[in-house]
Amino acid sequence: MILCDVGNTTYHFLDLTREYKEPVERFDPKTITQKVYYICVNPDLRENLDALQNWIDLAELIDMRPYYKTMGIDRIVACEAIQNGVIIDAGSAITVDIVRDGHFEGGFIYPGTQAMQDSYVNISHALDYEFNYNLNLDIIPKNSQDALSYGYLKLLYNEVMMHNLEVILTGGDAVKLQHIFPKAKYENELLFNSMKKIIKKAKLC
Amino acid sequence: MILCDVGNTTYHFLDLTREYKEPVERFDPKTITQKVYYICVNPDLRENLDALQNWIDLAELIDMRPYYKTMGIDRIVACEAIQNGVIIDAGSAITVDIVRDGHFEGGFIYPGTQAMQDSYVNISHALDYEFNYNLNLDIIPKNSQDALSYGYLKLLYNEVMMHNLEVILTGGDAVKLQHIFPKAKYENELLFNSMKKIIKKAKLC
Repeated sequence: MILCDVGNTTYHFLDLTREYKEPVERFDPKTITQKVYYICVNPDLRENLDALQNWIDLAELIDMRPYYKTMGIDRIVACEAIQNGVIIDAGSAITVDIVRDGHFEGGFIYPGTQAMQDSYVNISHALDYEFNYNLNLDIIPKNSQDALSYGYLKLLYNEVMMHNLEVILTGGDAVKLQHIFPKAKYENELLFNSMKKIIKKAKLC
Repeated sequence: MILCDVGNTTYHFLDLTREYKEPVERFDPKTITQKVYYICVNPDLRENLDALQNWIDLAELIDMRPYYKTMGIDRIVACEAIQNGVIIDAGSAITVDIVRDGHFEGGFIYPGTQAMQDSYVNISHALDYEFNYNLNLDIIPKNSQDALSYGYLKLLYNEVMMHNLEVILTGGDAVKLQHIFPKAKYENELLFNSMKKIIKKAKLC
């Protein structure tokens, strides 16, 4: 069984033996002849994949009624994986979704680490600092690097903690946020695990 | 008496009769022959102004010890204006500074409204939405526009309200934030008022 999470920039694969990524602009999905179970956030790519018999779109197996129309399928699949928790998926954007008693309560979107840093630099070169991920969140900053880091990290922390639920960290930049959320569960393969569950539930294999 | 707050993009003047702005790239400060009391966040412009006899830099009259070295002079002058409060100065960046019992506790920096919107769009065109400033902060969003607006506005709101102080809104984009902070004091001329106080205290006129 091959699983694939198709994003805007990469095909992210998991098969029995390995996990790997292929760039969207160079990879041709026709080169795979085995069955691939996938989700895809990119509408153009999804249309292409739809034409391939061996690529099975898992989105069609999910009851979408609890979610909203423009919500990314990756967020939906992550929510399907848990009964209770705040899921922080830290990629080019950070999505934060709240699931309580198996019910999707809603979520919000925040810039990813690179996007936020770029946004500060675009305002002024005086704001060109790397974030300090080891920031002490209990101290209101008195230096520029921490003032920018606090504006990004503490504000995210406050909101996430307000929901009084287990915090689940996933996505490519999740490791950066581990110091900010020391009690969070780090689930690198949250999406793939959820995809496996969906396949099992639908008795596809 | 002419006051001027020199930013990265404009000279912002206040004289007895009017308030007006001049673009940094076209305005020549030598054209003013009267005395101008100014503050300036831009180091290059500040060097130019320093050479002009009739331009008086108010930064030199302020005791800088409570503040930090790279802190913008506009933030410092705003803090000098109050005894207690959270100052939100909403410009190209949003600066948030905490003053308690006349003592500067610290502050943080957050992207301005345009910078944050640009940052979302740069991640994906699917995130190209205007912010909803009338957002209900008590509801976790279930649509894209509110998910982005919440990520920007609710996170700022949480942190600001945690300090249990009067909120003071100033800066060009302050009006946009008035619905989010309905109890805030809107002080359009906070900086100019503070500059007047500094001049009076120094008995310059």
